[in-house]
Amino acid sequence: MIVRPRPSIWKLFFLVRGSILPRVLPRLVLVFLLSLAIVWGHRAFPGRIGAIDGAPFALVGIALSVFLGSRNAACYERWWEGRKVWGAMIAAARDFARATLILGPEAPARRRLLSLTIAFAQAMVPHLRRSAGHDRVLALLPGELHATYRASRNPPDAILRAIAEILAEERRAGRITDIEWQVLDAHARALGEAQAACERIRTTPVPFAYTVLLHRIAFLFCVLLPFGFVDALGYVTPLVGTLVAYAVFGLDALGDELERPFDAEPNALPIQALADTLEINLREAMGQAVLPEAPKPVGHVLM
Amino acid sequence: MIVRPRPSIWKLFFLVRGSILPRVLPRLVLVFLLSLAIVWGHRAFPGRIGAIDGAPFALVGIALSVFLGSRNAACYERWWEGRKVWGAMIAAARDFARATLILGPEAPARRRLLSLTIAFAQAMVPHLRRSAGHDRVLALLPGELHATYRASRNPPDAILRAIAEILAEERRAGRITDIEWQVLDAHARALGEAQAACERIRTTPVPFAYTVLLHRIAFLFCVLLPFGFVDALGYVTPLVGTLVAYAVFGLDALGDELERPFDAEPNALPIQALADTLEINLREAMGQAVLPEAPKPVGHVLM
Amino acid sequence: MIVRPRPSIWKLFFLVRGSILPRVLPRLVLVFLLSLAIVWGHRAFPGRIGAIDGAPFALVGIALSVFLGSRNAACYERWWEGRKVWGAMIAAARDFARATLILGPEAPARRRLLSLTIAFAQAMVPHLRRSAGHDRVLALLPGELHATYRASRNPPDAILRAIAEILAEERRAGRITDIEWQVLDAHARALGEAQAACERIRTTPVPFAYTVLLHRIAFLFCVLLPFGFVDALGYVTPLVGTLVAYAVFGLDALGDELERPFDAEPNALPIQALADTLEINLREAMGQAVLPEAPKPVGHVLM
Amino acid sequence: MIVRPRPSIWKLFFLVRGSILPRVLPRLVLVFLLSLAIVWGHRAFPGRIGAIDGAPFALVGIALSVFLGSRNAACYERWWEGRKVWGAMIAAARDFARATLILGPEAPARRRLLSLTIAFAQAMVPHLRRSAGHDRVLALLPGELHATYRASRNPPDAILRAIAEILAEERRAGRITDIEWQVLDAHARALGEAQAACERIRTTPVPFAYTVLLHRIAFLFCVLLPFGFVDALGYVTPLVGTLVAYAVFGLDALGDELERPFDAEPNALPIQALADTLEINLREAMGQAVLPEAPKPVGHVLM
Amino acid sequence: MIVRPRPSIWKLFFLVRGSILPRVLPRLVLVFLLSLAIVWGHRAFPGRIGAIDGAPFALVGIALSVFLGSRNAACYERWWEGRKVWGAMIAAARDFARATLILGPEAPARRRLLSLTIAFAQAMVPHLRRSAGHDRVLALLPGELHATYRASRNPPDAILRAIAEILAEERRAGRITDIEWQVLDAHARALGEAQAACERIRTTPVPFAYTVLLHRIAFLFCVLLPFGFVDALGYVTPLVGTLVAYAVFGLDALGDELERPFDAEPNALPIQALADTLEINLREAMGQAVLPEAPKPVGHVLM
Repeated sequence: MIVRPRPSIWKLFFLVRGSILPRVLPRLVLVFLLSLAIVWGHRAFPGRIGAIDGAPFALVGIALSVFLGSRNAACYERWWEGRKVWGAMIAAARDFARATLILGPEAPARRRLLSLTIAFAQAMVPHLRRSAGHDRVLALLPGELHATYRASRNPPDAILRAIAEILAEERRAGRITDIEWQVLDAHARALGEAQAACERIRTTPVPFAYTVLLHRIAFLFCVLLPFGFVDALGYVTPLVGTLVAYAVFGLDALGDELERPFDAEPNALPIQALADTLEINLREAMGQAVLPEAPKPVGHVLM
Repeated sequence: MIVRPRPSIWKLFFLVRGSILPRVLPRLVLVFLLSLAIVWGHRAFPGRIGAIDGAPFALVGIALSVFLGSRNAACYERWWEGRKVWGAMIAAARDFARATLILGPEAPARRRLLSLTIAFAQAMVPHLRRSAGHDRVLALLPGELHATYRASRNPPDAILRAIAEILAEERRAGRITDIEWQVLDAHARALGEAQAACERIRTTPVPFAYTVLLHRIAFLFCVLLPFGFVDALGYVTPLVGTLVAYAVFGLDALGDELERPFDAEPNALPIQALADTLEINLREAMGQAVLPEAPKPVGHVLM
Repeated sequence: MIVRPRPSIWKLFFLVRGSILPRVLPRLVLVFLLSLAIVWGHRAFPGRIGAIDGAPFALVGIALSVFLGSRNAACYERWWEGRKVWGAMIAAARDFARATLILGPEAPARRRLLSLTIAFAQAMVPHLRRSAGHDRVLALLPGELHATYRASRNPPDAILRAIAEILAEERRAGRITDIEWQVLDAHARALGEAQAACERIRTTPVPFAYTVLLHRIAFLFCVLLPFGFVDALGYVTPLVGTLVAYAVFGLDALGDELERPFDAEPNALPIQALADTLEINLREAMGQAVLPEAPKPVGHVLM
Repeated sequence: MIVRPRPSIWKLFFLVRGSILPRVLPRLVLVFLLSLAIVWGHRAFPGRIGAIDGAPFALVGIALSVFLGSRNAACYERWWEGRKVWGAMIAAARDFARATLILGPEAPARRRLLSLTIAFAQAMVPHLRRSAGHDRVLALLPGELHATYRASRNPPDAILRAIAEILAEERRAGRITDIEWQVLDAHARALGEAQAACERIRTTPVPFAYTVLLHRIAFLFCVLLPFGFVDALGYVTPLVGTLVAYAVFGLDALGDELERPFDAEPNALPIQALADTLEINLREAMGQAVLPEAPKPVGHVLM
Repeated sequence: MIVRPRPSIWKLFFLVRGSILPRVLPRLVLVFLLSLAIVWGHRAFPGRIGAIDGAPFALVGIALSVFLGSRNAACYERWWEGRKVWGAMIAAARDFARATLILGPEAPARRRLLSLTIAFAQAMVPHLRRSAGHDRVLALLPGELHATYRASRNPPDAILRAIAEILAEERRAGRITDIEWQVLDAHARALGEAQAACERIRTTPVPFAYTVLLHRIAFLFCVLLPFGFVDALGYVTPLVGTLVAYAVFGLDALGDELERPFDAEPNALPIQALADTLEINLREAMGQAVLPEAPKPVGHVLM
């Protein structure tokens, strides 16, 4: 996530980091050069490289705006739902820290449960990013769970199961009543639901055919556009064509980024930072005096 | 579901699988040929085959964009809700595996409950696709349930009832308290709610009159369009007309596919793969050492 | 609900049942004849019946599209929520059948509870359609409830109260614990919530002023449109005008139908069939060997 | 709420009650006269009162449609949420009537609880409308609560507190178990949540700056529009301009009404009628033989 | 939040407070002067400063409207969700006041719990606004929590933990049953969820790249627009250009304000007033005779 104070309107134009411009620059250059060639060709060989009436472009352009707008809204929804789910995870973890006070603030079972909860959140980061980062999780897990964690097809789920085993033991040993077990179990459930929602967003992108269709229409539209305006605009065509292409390709590329909110990209969600925040909250709740530092953006980007 | 890395912008144009193009190709060819005929006829017999002013088309085109956009948003919602419901089913199943630890990790009742949960998920696939696949479910069911499964009007519901019977027996036998029964029963409830939601999406398409109305307007629009641009565009008319028709028919056809997210189509949801994932998760939770392989896409398509 | 396989694109044009065309035909004929009269009049008396420039129509047309689109989305939402609520009712009833196993699969109280649940669902049909059909409900009710049912201002609520009375009796007699009462009571609650949601959709249409405003704009737009295109289109005006009118009036009329999803109309929800499905599911859960036949569409329409 | 059968398309034009026309008539007359003056002035002094090209108006008009559409959707959402909340309140009240059967159908505590629930719903009406109507509530309250009700900053909350006090007393006296208290308490909670949601909608309108911005753009647009069409339309300008103004001002004014769904306006929600319906349902549940009459619309308006 | 009666249509034009005009005035002046310069330049040096055909602007303008509309809808959603969350917090707090009656209306534990709840709500204000205001919270906290509050990385969470500790103590001392603990604990949970939702909205703005892209398109559009209309509009260009710029920049700036609903800005949510309302409700529920005054807007602004 890009974290920076809103820059002034002037600075906005010269920002690169956080802008979608670098990703679409090659395509913009292409449209610019193509437009230039068309204008030149149209003037040099009026009979060969003809102009097209602009009216149909308005039609396609409006349809494209509506469809791009729809897709972007859907991608933003995914991104925002990803954030909601992580927020729910943080709330569930903090709440677990409060509810386990029933075991006694200093009870060993409570410490183990909360450590496992931190490990769960930290395990979600490599799980969702298919990245390294398992060492940090292993450091949080007791030795007897290392093998289980490494062997599991779904490591965060294995950690949740370890949490459920502790709760079931406490219950069978009669240290908590069935109601208390019910209350504590509901938190593992909340964490499990958050995990499944994250996996859903991670594994199910917007239908591929939808993306392909929009990409194609957007591309054909931007390539044909200069033909439509060459008569009316002349040598201003490349400028206006590039502006239109910037809007079209920019929104398209932004949708691509928001569609995968858990990737390690500048505009994605800072799930490592969220897991770290959860860890700080839980360590404080466990009464630890020295807490890790709060996550900070590097070069305006929080990961 | 199409599973492939986002191809480069060039490859996007030559993709066939996952694209909606093959489905709408006949209609595009029709529009292309019709446009050609109109241009030729207009030039050959200017008095007979006249041009129409393009302005009313802009009007109809914009309206059509808005309505197609609405319908597609509704169809996407259905598709995404289908995925949400399956995600909830997976979460409920995993959570059931954790909560049943209260019975003892190795308790026979737990094994039977989890096997039935796997059978429930696998039974949902032929139930929603009205396809074969019952043998796989029967292999997961204990012999005494085979007849019930085969006779039932709603086989997944019959399996859920078998789960509920085990829970009621455990309760009546006093092996679990009423609270524990309440907690475990809530999982059967979550599975049942997911089932009813799937059935709702499966049996209730977008209102037929809506689909018919949009199909008709889209078709008339694409057929009349060449008359509107023949004067302005000349022999470029077929090209532009086909581009517009690709956008209109493509979105329309995509909406048709997303409307039925549980069908065995490339752009539908991979519910067989989801059921297999759930099975792997539950087998791991039951402590099985050898797990089935993870579902893999065949020719970029995950079913 | 119209139930038919998606017809080919050619057949789509000659469908009548399920199409909205018959409802808007008189208005389309009116627009057609009016357009014809305007074209004739404009040519016969050019000074008297003048043409209007088409530009303002584009403006009004776009605005109208956006507003019609909004209203239709709202009406579709109502229709889909109605279906969701009935799905939730079916899920709650099936779940009740499972949870009451705690009373014993053959307990008389369970039978009475499930019979009343069927009666509740069947009572919802005449309640929402303000139609006949009470005999069928009475046949499902025990004799002592007939008078109550007939006298009640809200018959389904009276049936739910009878369910609650059985549960309270079981509880007071000590045959179920307070937790078990809590679980079973939650189902009556789910049914009651579904009922209130249905009544909300039934009694509260989209604000009347909104409907009136859109109807008026749509009508004025379609009547004035021919004046705007008479110069540009000549004798093609009636054709194009009727196409536009079909889109505008068609969507408007479709919105009207979806707005009242519980009426006995072809495009409304098949709530009788849904109640019958629920009845079949519950009879199967009660162990009845002979089940009613599944509801079938009559002339492609499921009621 | 306007309650009337959908009138025929002809009658729709001559309806006044329920239409938004009377509210925007002054502004329409203004636009009409202004347009007339502009046309006359433009013809009389062509050099002084000039025409403007219409193209920019299309631009502003489309933007305005999109933004008006957005705002109206938001206002409709508020209105519909208000109705949902009242529906939830009715469901909670009916459900409370069922759940309290556990106290015994004729238990005095049950009577007191249900009377207080009726009083709560009736107290919501003057609370949300800031209107008179407290006498009716006081008649439903026991004498010892009159002073509390009158003194309270939030009278419905004071009534809910009285409900909670009865439940806590029953619990402390051991007449209900803790689970039963939990179940009954959940109903007071549902009523309290409904109340807070109503207060949220009541006290937080759509952001003022948004309303101001749209009003200004709408007004400038309608006032400048005649200049844009005077050349193309001549003396038809006032007609078309007034039609556009009717759409723009009408939707704007309708949004204003829907924004405050609890006011005593024709297009607002009939919360008095809803409270009366709840009262009838609860009185029937209490076994009262003589029930108040069902609320009826006066001059097609239900309040 | 701006609180004022809807002003008449005339006054709307001369309002400054609550309008977005002051924020965008510099940009409007810039567009006005630039337009003027372009018109003058175009007339003075027709060959040098050329006009551009207006058609492409319509295209960009419509796309921009759709995208601005989308972003504004997303920002409004955030703002409204912020309000919903605070409403849920108020409902949870009032409900806590009712449920704790089970401890006895005058029980010291109840007083401590409700005081801590007030402190929690008041602590949310400086927490979300990163402002001063901690003294007021400290005055509500018992002395032994002052150090904890000051040291905490997340002060409201520390207060919730203190609430949970009291509940766990009551439970361990056997003064409440496990069910009663469950019920009371659920309120701390509701408050914790509201807190996490507020933090989510506070820390995660709309993706930065989206904002940058829209700002750039909006700016380029408004700057190039005069070139497009200089031929058609002449010296009216600055007027119309400024009107368009007002719509574009105004909606953009309004989106910026609604995006951060907890800031201390006129169009943001009055969270201080909401916390004060919650305090008044809880003090009344604690039986305090003298209540603080209701929060009042200062200069039409409620903070």
